[in-house]
Amino acid sequence: MTPIDPVDLTARLVRCPSVTPEEGGALVLLQDLLEGAGFTCTRVDRNGTSNLFARWGDKGAAKTFGFNGHTDVVPIGNPEDWTFDPFGAEIDGGFLYGRGSTDMKSGVAAFAAAAVDFVRGTPPDGSIILTITGDEEGDATDGTVALLDWMKDQGEQMDVCLVGEPTSPDFMGQMMKIGRRGSLSAWFTVQGQQGHSAYPHRALNPLPAMARLMDRLASHTLDEGTEHFDASTLAIVTIDTGNPATNVIPAQTRACVNIRFNDAHSGATLSDWLRDEAAKVDKAFGTTTSLKIKISGESFLTPPGALSDLVGAAVQAETNQVPELSTTGGTSDARFVKDHCPVVEFGLVGKRMHAVDERVEVAQVHQLKAIYTRILRSYFA
Amino acid sequence: MTPIDPVDLTARLVRCPSVTPEEGGALVLLQDLLEGAGFTCTRVDRNGTSNLFARWGDKGAAKTFGFNGHTDVVPIGNPEDWTFDPFGAEIDGGFLYGRGSTDMKSGVAAFAAAAVDFVRGTPPDGSIILTITGDEEGDATDGTVALLDWMKDQGEQMDVCLVGEPTSPDFMGQMMKIGRRGSLSAWFTVQGQQGHSAYPHRALNPLPAMARLMDRLASHTLDEGTEHFDASTLAIVTIDTGNPATNVIPAQTRACVNIRFNDAHSGATLSDWLRDEAAKVDKAFGTTTSLKIKISGESFLTPPGALSDLVGAAVQAETNQVPELSTTGGTSDARFVKDHCPVVEFGLVGKRMHAVDERVEVAQVHQLKAIYTRILRSYFA
Repeated sequence: MTPIDPVDLTARLVRCPSVTPEEGGALVLLQDLLEGAGFTCTRVDRNGTSNLFARWGDKGAAKTFGFNGHTDVVPIGNPEDWTFDPFGAEIDGGFLYGRGSTDMKSGVAAFAAAAVDFVRGTPPDGSIILTITGDEEGDATDGTVALLDWMKDQGEQMDVCLVGEPTSPDFMGQMMKIGRRGSLSAWFTVQGQQGHSAYPHRALNPLPAMARLMDRLASHTLDEGTEHFDASTLAIVTIDTGNPATNVIPAQTRACVNIRFNDAHSGATLSDWLRDEAAKVDKAFGTTTSLKIKISGESFLTPPGALSDLVGAAVQAETNQVPELSTTGGTSDARFVKDHCPVVEFGLVGKRMHAVDERVEVAQVHQLKAIYTRILRSYFA
Repeated sequence: MTPIDPVDLTARLVRCPSVTPEEGGALVLLQDLLEGAGFTCTRVDRNGTSNLFARWGDKGAAKTFGFNGHTDVVPIGNPEDWTFDPFGAEIDGGFLYGRGSTDMKSGVAAFAAAAVDFVRGTPPDGSIILTITGDEEGDATDGTVALLDWMKDQGEQMDVCLVGEPTSPDFMGQMMKIGRRGSLSAWFTVQGQQGHSAYPHRALNPLPAMARLMDRLASHTLDEGTEHFDASTLAIVTIDTGNPATNVIPAQTRACVNIRFNDAHSGATLSDWLRDEAAKVDKAFGTTTSLKIKISGESFLTPPGALSDLVGAAVQAETNQVPELSTTGGTSDARFVKDHCPVVEFGLVGKRMHAVDERVEVAQVHQLKAIYTRILRSYFA
């Protein structure tokens, strides 16, 4: 049988306008391809989000390798800003252009093509599971989480999983991810009492308390980094009051901070710290600060070992690069998969993600399929 | 001749809907009354603001007593919130209700009535000047300033001036003003560089610099008060960024502070201090802070002496209260008059200024006219 061309498959996926939460035909196309190669497919849709589960081989096989990815894409922004049709998948000068060409329809195309060709060629002694979601770029509440919930109910289990997100900052093979920092956002509302600027003693201005609190949080060193992680960081993302009158002391002000944290912390320990800091400032200023905290993901690590060795060897064989084992970057659905099985991430160069004229180098898509194929061969060898 | 009833005159003024910058008929009404009593009147309108200059007696007389006031009023807000027609001047339970009834149509009515009756009774050896503006509640750029500019051009001179603004916090005769603190507002824009919250080292977050700057300003003790003044105060009135995305570090943030300052400072020394503080923070954080400063008025003082004694004695005779010589409160047009001649302020109880169902006690309007009459008699005695 003719091998699947991962670039052609990427192009067909890019032509599906699957801006979150639209399925856009992308999962239907993949299901068709995978069922044709003997995969058992189930759509695991939840609350308007479309997700695809696909397994080749028996449930409960001795060895099960998993891939995870997403077909949804971020909005294109202003269409006028694009040189190429964002859903046209045009190829020009060795690059394929379009929204999702990097993040991450090419990644999905590469692992789907690798898996299909692999099972058609030398059927493995074990099973391969693909979990593909239509909600990674959105709230991610009914995407990979829904797939993993459903798998648990069904007794479906991956032994290891590779997430095909772009992972290298500059060149192919540069970096794989063996964990991610956690992310927490906290919204502060400092309440005082309104009054006239000429009579501050009759009011309780919440803004000096807010300035002190934000200064304390931003000045604090959370840690100096840990064995596998960079230092944790805190960014004040906004402070807002909305008082247009210079002769009025406002009653209230709000702020939000975002913390990216390593394994020296957890969402719970950081929440305690933030509440303590707010309480200290309230005590000093007489204000009342309320706090809403959202933990988007705890930090996690798949310690260097069998899985990272397997992926690293395949990357080195195809690219001549020894990928750095990194935990940098934002969040990905690996933060959910890590509760299911050991997980690493390896994919393309992430530079053009979410940008206008997003594009992928055609040669790198072929290379990525080759790497994924090698990984499957080694795993089932 | 029948004496002018200051309550009736207040009511007629309240019925003129003179919300800044509308003249609303108020100055026309006063001009008619004053010309009937032998005052020479001139409308000194400038840039859409209406102002009235009125003099009884000769220009360049040996002694000239001045009154200053305004007939414009602040907006009524939501009419549904009013129990009484805000421009109806209804009298109920000893109070006259309406926008401007306290601030300060009753004050203008009281001094106009006092002046008219006085010159009709025992014509003084000297002159009386009334300067009445239609722009005190607005920007005040073409109100009393325009009158004083015109007077300078015309060689018109008051020897002393009484501003009829409400001055007592709680009861009639409690307080007169012999000066005012200055007021300065400063708008800060801290410029950094936008970036992703996960990579703060690639961005330059302006918010930690803003928090530090505001904390430093709010924590600083400007002074402990001076002989005739309370301590200077600084109020942060707003900090705003408007960044809704927790994963984005904003490029810019803005804040505004308002300073009420006594005679230990000037607008210039405070501006220097603010610029120094911003520069220190910029140096520490690498940010670029720009600063826009508006000095609404410098602090000023008419030292206790002949004028305050004259007014104090009249107040005591009519109310049995020795008025406190104060420099508290917001700003008033006295800040402009002080460059022309010694100025003090005495008027009603200011409690209901700018409020819904603004009202004035009818008896106090009569009392105020009696005080102003006594002041004129003593001055020209």
